[in-house]
Amino acid sequence: MTQSTLIPTEKTRIRLHPERAVYDRDAMYRVIDEALVCHVGVAVGGAPRVIPTAIIRIGDFVYIHGSPANQLLVALEAGAPACITITLIDGIVAGRSGFGMSMDYRAVMIFATAEKIIDAEEKARLVAAFVEDICPGHQVRAPKPKELAATMFLRLPLTEASLKIRNQGVLDPEADHQLDTWSGVIPLQITAGPPRNCRDLKPGIAVPDYARTYRRGPTAR
Amino acid sequence: MTQSTLIPTEKTRIRLHPERAVYDRDAMYRVIDEALVCHVGVAVGGAPRVIPTAIIRIGDFVYIHGSPANQLLVALEAGAPACITITLIDGIVAGRSGFGMSMDYRAVMIFATAEKIIDAEEKARLVAAFVEDICPGHQVRAPKPKELAATMFLRLPLTEASLKIRNQGVLDPEADHQLDTWSGVIPLQITAGPPRNCRDLKPGIAVPDYARTYRRGPTAR
Repeated sequence: MTQSTLIPTEKTRIRLHPERAVYDRDAMYRVIDEALVCHVGVAVGGAPRVIPTAIIRIGDFVYIHGSPANQLLVALEAGAPACITITLIDGIVAGRSGFGMSMDYRAVMIFATAEKIIDAEEKARLVAAFVEDICPGHQVRAPKPKELAATMFLRLPLTEASLKIRNQGVLDPEADHQLDTWSGVIPLQITAGPPRNCRDLKPGIAVPDYARTYRRGPTAR
Repeated sequence: MTQSTLIPTEKTRIRLHPERAVYDRDAMYRVIDEALVCHVGVAVGGAPRVIPTAIIRIGDFVYIHGSPANQLLVALEAGAPACITITLIDGIVAGRSGFGMSMDYRAVMIFATAEKIIDAEEKARLVAAFVEDICPGHQVRAPKPKELAATMFLRLPLTEASLKIRNQGVLDPEADHQLDTWSGVIPLQITAGPPRNCRDLKPGIAVPDYARTYRRGPTAR
């Protein structure tokens, strides 16, 4: 049975600011679901390599994908341990000192090894899930066998992971409160601009609502 | 003399989509300067670890900072090689197939080892540079010696790095152009909402212009 709260391990126990640590699965899942991309770290020949890539979650697994020629994915497929970090920046924290400057953020860190998805039907379902995650409502044609063969899908279990949330705003010491300096939080979010049609768009196709009203954020789904 | 174009190495030569590779320093610097955070990867005991952290650039160096108790910074200080990746997501690319879905992005990847900044005056200048980078125009009080002592600053040279830019929008094969599917790019950017005053703000201090009009983007500076 899946635990609703993960047990911290040597790697995932948050030592700095432990009050910001969250091990609740649902809280982690909300961050992963809101994010467009993650940063995957792998040690290749002892040296770290970090790449950005799209990430989706289905149940208690995350999925990434890419070219079978991607060195980092090849290392993962061969069993190299991964650290996947998913970061959402929620605001600039403008304190009254350099020390008081910060950002509010939510960051999930996952430690896992990957398993390659072989089954073509499962790969086709994952294609659909990535499309719906990246651009909800967008309909695409079915993938071709050649396209599925040219894409590697990896899944990693969410068993060793942590979430660190900083949402406290300004934490200046009391002695600084009397300074004549503005102090507060500037909230940040990712916003979408007006869609640009593909140059080769078939005439007569209007920009759909899901593209005009695209948004990401905690209430996006 | 500093080269204006970096020479690709075994690690930084972009093999997949080499047409997206950029080795021009100024182009890399614009991406680093626009970004708020980077993801730093280090192999700790053979296992990768990736954390998000603020990054600034001065000349041909990038700087990160944090608590001297941060395991990853400690490993860097001890000479562990780092991979620092800076990613800006510029848009959702909605193609007509799963294979045609993508994102437009700019990503810098830096390989380097770090050097700890010891000099207190240099650390104080770095505090000011971080403040100005994170929140341009914001004025803070001078750092206290205790605060400087409690912060580790690391600098890494920009000598082995690459920039990968995807800005091509939809790249569907011609056979897909006749599909009755909308296709295009939804531009994304980071936008700021109305600033929230610190709870303990001294009465009478108004929200300054730099906070009300905060923005990040290619034209931000």
